[in-house]
Amino acid sequence: MSIVVSLVGATGAVGAQFLKILEQRKFPMRKLRLYATKRSAGSKIRFRGEDLTVEDTDPAKAFLGADIVFVSATTAASADYCPAAARVGAVAIDDSSAFRLDPKVPLVVPEINANDLQWHKGIVSTPNCTTVPLAMVLHALRQASPIRRVVVDTYQAVSGTGSAAVRELTDQTRAALAGGKIEKSVYPHQIAFNLIPQVDTFREDGYTKEEWKMQEETRRILGLSGLLFSATCVRVPVYQAHSMAVHIDFERPVEPKQARVLLSEMPGVKLVDNPEKSLYPLPIQAADTDDVLVGRIRKDTSNPTGLVLWLSADNLRKGAALNAVQIAEELVRRNLLGKR
Amino acid sequence: MSIVVSLVGATGAVGAQFLKILEQRKFPMRKLRLYATKRSAGSKIRFRGEDLTVEDTDPAKAFLGADIVFVSATTAASADYCPAAARVGAVAIDDSSAFRLDPKVPLVVPEINANDLQWHKGIVSTPNCTTVPLAMVLHALRQASPIRRVVVDTYQAVSGTGSAAVRELTDQTRAALAGGKIEKSVYPHQIAFNLIPQVDTFREDGYTKEEWKMQEETRRILGLSGLLFSATCVRVPVYQAHSMAVHIDFERPVEPKQARVLLSEMPGVKLVDNPEKSLYPLPIQAADTDDVLVGRIRKDTSNPTGLVLWLSADNLRKGAALNAVQIAEELVRRNLLGKR
Repeated sequence: MSIVVSLVGATGAVGAQFLKILEQRKFPMRKLRLYATKRSAGSKIRFRGEDLTVEDTDPAKAFLGADIVFVSATTAASADYCPAAARVGAVAIDDSSAFRLDPKVPLVVPEINANDLQWHKGIVSTPNCTTVPLAMVLHALRQASPIRRVVVDTYQAVSGTGSAAVRELTDQTRAALAGGKIEKSVYPHQIAFNLIPQVDTFREDGYTKEEWKMQEETRRILGLSGLLFSATCVRVPVYQAHSMAVHIDFERPVEPKQARVLLSEMPGVKLVDNPEKSLYPLPIQAADTDDVLVGRIRKDTSNPTGLVLWLSADNLRKGAALNAVQIAEELVRRNLLGKR
Repeated sequence: MSIVVSLVGATGAVGAQFLKILEQRKFPMRKLRLYATKRSAGSKIRFRGEDLTVEDTDPAKAFLGADIVFVSATTAASADYCPAAARVGAVAIDDSSAFRLDPKVPLVVPEINANDLQWHKGIVSTPNCTTVPLAMVLHALRQASPIRRVVVDTYQAVSGTGSAAVRELTDQTRAALAGGKIEKSVYPHQIAFNLIPQVDTFREDGYTKEEWKMQEETRRILGLSGLLFSATCVRVPVYQAHSMAVHIDFERPVEPKQARVLLSEMPGVKLVDNPEKSLYPLPIQAADTDDVLVGRIRKDTSNPTGLVLWLSADNLRKGAALNAVQIAEELVRRNLLGKR
């Protein structure tokens, strides 16, 4: 219990989940230090019955003496902070895309590849919020047959963009219901009662960075560099929890029954698959919970060796803060923290 | 201009679009007669500057003297009304699923298979609101190469369920914003700020009827009985216009450039495909318009002979009322109305 933790980005949407999860899981730490941008510095956050003061993230001070630094910031800030934290002997667990494809930095979903933590050099990446639940489901199912191809379309919640996007959905929804003017500041288009088939910016090949990241990160976590992959990522007017329709082509036929057994045995995955009773994953049920909910498992009518399924998972928890805390727990359990 | 038209279901969400479209397109008719269920009988609807009275749908009277009967009712009601209309010499244009897979009834999207109208026997079916835009896009693209397989995930608006669902989305959204109790009557789950991966009821194979109809109707309209097909249909908190992520496997490679040319030449389709400027189809832009909006056209990174795209189309117009009126226009143009 001598562990000191610094949390960078404590006042954001993911930061709030970090605080909840560290408290809920009784993370074994002696001290928690909170950091954010200058704008939020000085504000107080209640944690385990104490009022903690949020400080401005000064890399020269914020990481000194810390064993673990959770970084939930912009990619540019992470690129600075993580090496700075590693240099002073902490392990940075980063939730940005800064290091996710860096071969010197492990990209970890503990239920899949916790062993990759062994070779960390002071930085560990936690994957994109769309990648985590998808990779978990694919990992469970590849026990039945190698996977050849994955086609996935996402239905992503606004909290993945941050707190400002959450407010924008609320404000626009109120304005739309009142017949008022729709103000836009976060998204290029209205999100209330609408869909935006763009998450992150576009690449030359017509895919968004989000779609490309999902592909590259999934390949990396599963160790399947040749996995055929195509995604369409869509923002939907939902607050919390991302959902996906997933189409998987296996090398050999996999029965839905077998898939259900494998998925129900996978830690962190919960089967919600009883169509007769209208039971299937819903984002409002996945929100604020830890499990990846999976259902609507059926044969792919377009491919004799394919399966189709639907999943929902909390983008702020298993898609971000929870996965990062689980990484920290594994680092503690395996005695892989830095030697300050 | 001696044509008499009966509209059954005049007071519903699709009925309202029928009235708009008949007026906008100056449909060449002498008289329009409006019908609905007993509950709505007696109400007045303004059309071309006149107040028309809605009557109770009595099959013995409603179709007598009509040349065209638009039926926008339940499947059970359509199963009754359409043969009754045909018996008295009218042509019934039906928007339910009652006859869509009946080999004796043409299932028509005029831009694709208007010729099938030639063998009608008094009933013509207009396809499901998800099928119409998808079939139009596939029809345009098969000029480049035969299509082997289609994987599609939908994002469907609540107006596809009817006016009560539109009210339910509004009421639940208000309640959610106010922190009040969410009342459900139309959908099995909350739809406000949520997703429901169920449209219509479930079949034994785990697909919903909506997903199965999409497959069977698309095959029928395109005349491709062996088309490999798999869909996941999802209800989203959007009022009007259905959207879809579509993954198409061709027999030969098709370049996005070639696809854009073919789609821009297809009547009823409009290209909205400029990612650099964040231009792509949005349901709020497709709503109340006639065209199927198509964009985000790109190579399928999971298949060298595949393309991926995104579309939005008004489910009440091209997905229902507009397609039915276009069928009527073709029947008039080709002199294929019944001989009363």
